Amino acid sequence: MNIGFVGLGRMGMGMARNLMKAGHQLTVFNRTREKVEPLRGDGARVAHSSAEAARHADAVFTMLADDLALEEMVLGEDGIAAGLAPAAAHISSSTISTRCARRLAEEHRKRKQVMISAPVFGRPDAAEAKKLLVVAAGDEDQLDRFRSLFDQIGRLAFIAGPEPWQANALKLCGNFMIASMLETFGEAFTVLRKSRIEPQVFLEVMKELFGSPVYAAYGAAIANSKFEPPGFALKLGLKDVREALRLGEEAGAPMPFASIMRDHFISALANGQENLDWSSIALVSARAAGLQAG
Amino acid sequence: MNIGFVGLGRMGMGMARNLMKAGHQLTVFNRTREKVEPLRGDGARVAHSSAEAARHADAVFTMLADDLALEEMVLGEDGIAAGLAPAAAHISSSTISTRCARRLAEEHRKRKQVMISAPVFGRPDAAEAKKLLVVAAGDEDQLDRFRSLFDQIGRLAFIAGPEPWQANALKLCGNFMIASMLETFGEAFTVLRKSRIEPQVFLEVMKELFGSPVYAAYGAAIANSKFEPPGFALKLGLKDVREALRLGEEAGAPMPFASIMRDHFISALANGQENLDWSSIALVSARAAGLQAG
Amino acid sequence: MNIGFVGLGRMGMGMARNLMKAGHQLTVFNRTREKVEPLRGDGARVAHSSAEAARHADAVFTMLADDLALEEMVLGEDGIAAGLAPAAAHISSSTISTRCARRLAEEHRKRKQVMISAPVFGRPDAAEAKKLLVVAAGDEDQLDRFRSLFDQIGRLAFIAGPEPWQANALKLCGNFMIASMLETFGEAFTVLRKSRIEPQVFLEVMKELFGSPVYAAYGAAIANSKFEPPGFALKLGLKDVREALRLGEEAGAPMPFASIMRDHFISALANGQENLDWSSIALVSARAAGLQAG
Amino acid sequence: MNIGFVGLGRMGMGMARNLMKAGHQLTVFNRTREKVEPLRGDGARVAHSSAEAARHADAVFTMLADDLALEEMVLGEDGIAAGLAPAAAHISSSTISTRCARRLAEEHRKRKQVMISAPVFGRPDAAEAKKLLVVAAGDEDQLDRFRSLFDQIGRLAFIAGPEPWQANALKLCGNFMIASMLETFGEAFTVLRKSRIEPQVFLEVMKELFGSPVYAAYGAAIANSKFEPPGFALKLGLKDVREALRLGEEAGAPMPFASIMRDHFISALANGQENLDWSSIALVSARAAGLQAG
Repeated sequence: MNIGFVGLGRMGMGMARNLMKAGHQLTVFNRTREKVEPLRGDGARVAHSSAEAARHADAVFTMLADDLALEEMVLGEDGIAAGLAPAAAHISSSTISTRCARRLAEEHRKRKQVMISAPVFGRPDAAEAKKLLVVAAGDEDQLDRFRSLFDQIGRLAFIAGPEPWQANALKLCGNFMIASMLETFGEAFTVLRKSRIEPQVFLEVMKELFGSPVYAAYGAAIANSKFEPPGFALKLGLKDVREALRLGEEAGAPMPFASIMRDHFISALANGQENLDWSSIALVSARAAGLQAG
Repeated sequence: MNIGFVGLGRMGMGMARNLMKAGHQLTVFNRTREKVEPLRGDGARVAHSSAEAARHADAVFTMLADDLALEEMVLGEDGIAAGLAPAAAHISSSTISTRCARRLAEEHRKRKQVMISAPVFGRPDAAEAKKLLVVAAGDEDQLDRFRSLFDQIGRLAFIAGPEPWQANALKLCGNFMIASMLETFGEAFTVLRKSRIEPQVFLEVMKELFGSPVYAAYGAAIANSKFEPPGFALKLGLKDVREALRLGEEAGAPMPFASIMRDHFISALANGQENLDWSSIALVSARAAGLQAG
Repeated sequence: MNIGFVGLGRMGMGMARNLMKAGHQLTVFNRTREKVEPLRGDGARVAHSSAEAARHADAVFTMLADDLALEEMVLGEDGIAAGLAPAAAHISSSTISTRCARRLAEEHRKRKQVMISAPVFGRPDAAEAKKLLVVAAGDEDQLDRFRSLFDQIGRLAFIAGPEPWQANALKLCGNFMIASMLETFGEAFTVLRKSRIEPQVFLEVMKELFGSPVYAAYGAAIANSKFEPPGFALKLGLKDVREALRLGEEAGAPMPFASIMRDHFISALANGQENLDWSSIALVSARAAGLQAG
Repeated sequence: MNIGFVGLGRMGMGMARNLMKAGHQLTVFNRTREKVEPLRGDGARVAHSSAEAARHADAVFTMLADDLALEEMVLGEDGIAAGLAPAAAHISSSTISTRCARRLAEEHRKRKQVMISAPVFGRPDAAEAKKLLVVAAGDEDQLDRFRSLFDQIGRLAFIAGPEPWQANALKLCGNFMIASMLETFGEAFTVLRKSRIEPQVFLEVMKELFGSPVYAAYGAAIANSKFEPPGFALKLGLKDVREALRLGEEAGAPMPFASIMRDHFISALANGQENLDWSSIALVSARAAGLQAG
């Protein structure tokens, strides 16, 4: 297929490469142009606008930081909505709000374009290694039509429902689950450290107890205070928790854990952690207990 | 070895059977006498007091509900402290407070008896299937001496440190991690249900994301509102979270997630959930969002 | 002076009447037209749009429910921005976000109009009785120019600073203080009731301890479960707490009490309290403790 | 009357002096002996034990730091229970747990002695100035018998109920209300400071809004970061919030605000605030927002 790809950060880059390896012709666009040069060498066309990336595509992927960035790339001047042909699809992989997803779905519908939400779970290395989990939502026939693409960027794909925003709701709740694990580790390690128990044994037990590679990886990062380079930046963690809280408010569901995490992400940013991984939320607990960071 | 075993609830029963299968001679005591009759048939001696269960033992295990029950069995009339020979060991597997562990260690030391804390992770079926995780702490030589026993009741054993109470601190923090996962599922499922997204797909994604059997099992229980029979009763969950908070207070470490969970366990009990599994803490989130229980 | 007044709900009505009593000529506009008929009888002109209410005014007051309503009345078709003469002032008394205040200040500045934020503390009866507290912010000379107006609608006026949004920040924090008192009463009365202590004596002691009429009035409402008619609707309470949290996020300040209150207001709405006073947030604590509402 | 008085800290000293001024003969005891010498000069007898202070008394007051200190003075060797005559009364003014009050009431009943709980609201200067609020509970006839004493130490007395512990429950809930106000000020001042709004105007508005001297005094202390000398030490604040939470747990009532305050008091102690007034809980919010203390 002809595939457009807009947003070539570390996540997008891995996904784009895997689509090229699967044999698709890619046309790519990134606001910071130099980032896409490596892809040109691999055979991708480099577009001058997101509209151009979408122009002749069967589907255009987007992988951007937040609602604002995505809306500008889709609805702004020379945006995807302007370039995409009728019946072609916008496959949105960003972690965005459900409101944004609903708004874009509506805009695409007006133009007889297809909108699919397909956010992914996994960090940049998982994107590169084709190990993402893809959660897709949208019209059933359209999901069938593009199903092979999901398999080409991830190791498993799930269908969340017939409305694109449902995939985004599920993704936000998933990130809420991960962030909750991070905070829990932060509290537990802090109380153990202050009881003069090194966190390493605790981590070993937790790895066995949960039998989970996610626990093992994040737990080790927190036990060793290794928060750089950021696989997922702290301010993106705040954004996702904020969006989970908005989803909860719209749905009429209080989320007290999410409320605490929001407070802790804010405290982390106020204390200079903007360039650390979101697992560094654990430092907030350490500081509250009078422990030196690190 | 000659092994005493005090406290033959569902957890203790599985552990005692596995010690018998490993070839040890057991002398057992339980306050409710009829519970131990099945073990008599298997070759165990039945004692009339915990002192008697400890009398000729190399080591006496205890598996009781809480500090109070354990202290009565150890320090009360005809208690373990009175029956246990010098150099023989009390192996305490209950989930108790660090204060209680310190107090008992001191009492045993006065009598030249050995105290080992060896709390376990796992539910009754894991106890029966010899799949417990054992976390032991105490004098290094003594841990070596009884190491084989841990392997005979569980699938893995960990050493938490040279002071018995350290194993209890680690166990409390581990239960805090599990309870936090339960609460997180409760909040996430509630917001998804109120967004008209069935939790089943979310659970599938989480199982893949965390790759954890604990997530799979508890997540399914909560998604299906299956809280009976209780594998671990809600009031024990409250006890453990309360003890984790005390540990945090002694250590000088705030634990905001634990604080919320304490509030939610209290609310659960106030709303009639005393006979449900602790995973039913998820119902508190559901009620707060105006959802009918179940 | 010639005064415009847009937004004649229960708060605006009292304020408008007091301005008329002080001798000003009023031109009023309200989306629901019939509401303003009583004012016509008192000598007010009734405008057909907010632009018209602003047209010949020295100052136009606005008293609306939220950001959206205010922005529509100011920037929408036939809005205040279109009608107000250069050097004339928009005096915004609504409880709005600081972002909204900044945006409107910028829009008015472009048109060489004056913007003053002057939110008020007090319920409808205080508005009618000229007992409001007025918190004003804006250019110092302009505040001097309109100072007498503040004295004509309230019993005291305060200056928050030279930027209009500062008055809104202060107002949001003030409502946060009141809501926190409501939640605190809710928790305390619940624990007392469940200890079989009637809240009445407690309320008497608190009235003496704090020596505050606000404590006396809200405390009595909660003690007697009297939440109708709503002096300040619960969903407005949620709005204000939400805005306080946003202010905190922009400022880089976590607000854990506000986070809990947001959760409780959401729970209150999810349980059918949308037509009750915001003091009914106390019912959330009662329900969590298994008490019947009321 | 002959009055015993045990516990001559800053609170007890003021109360004892006022009882002497009212014409009663006092026999006083304090663990640190030198503290009571000034009272000897005023005509008090100095006892060598709490039993002796109680021996010939119609009533013996106690004003001690916590459950432990009180229980030792009452039930320990040469304690009040041993010295007090039948039908004489122990008037307990300490802020203690309801469990402790119930236990002491039972012990006194066994000895045919009278137990009255009469905790007070007010700081040391209020004790000296006879401006305390007294909350008494116990047998109605006994309250009548000693009613004049309450009027001699405070400006107002309230009856909480027929069981002594009810006064203690009410006192704990009252301290919870005050601590909640402290935390709320801490959060509000922090968000305002970080928005570059000085807290002084906000405090002026709050003083008018609530019309409360307690708000004025504590608000000023927090606005000016004046936390020394401690009128009420931070660790006593932690104790009272902890007891309020236990009361809530016994009653089956979650108290999320109290949970947060407990976490914040723990954090305050972990960061070196043990010698500051409890209003310094506000520093926890400031630190979380990255503000320098002070």
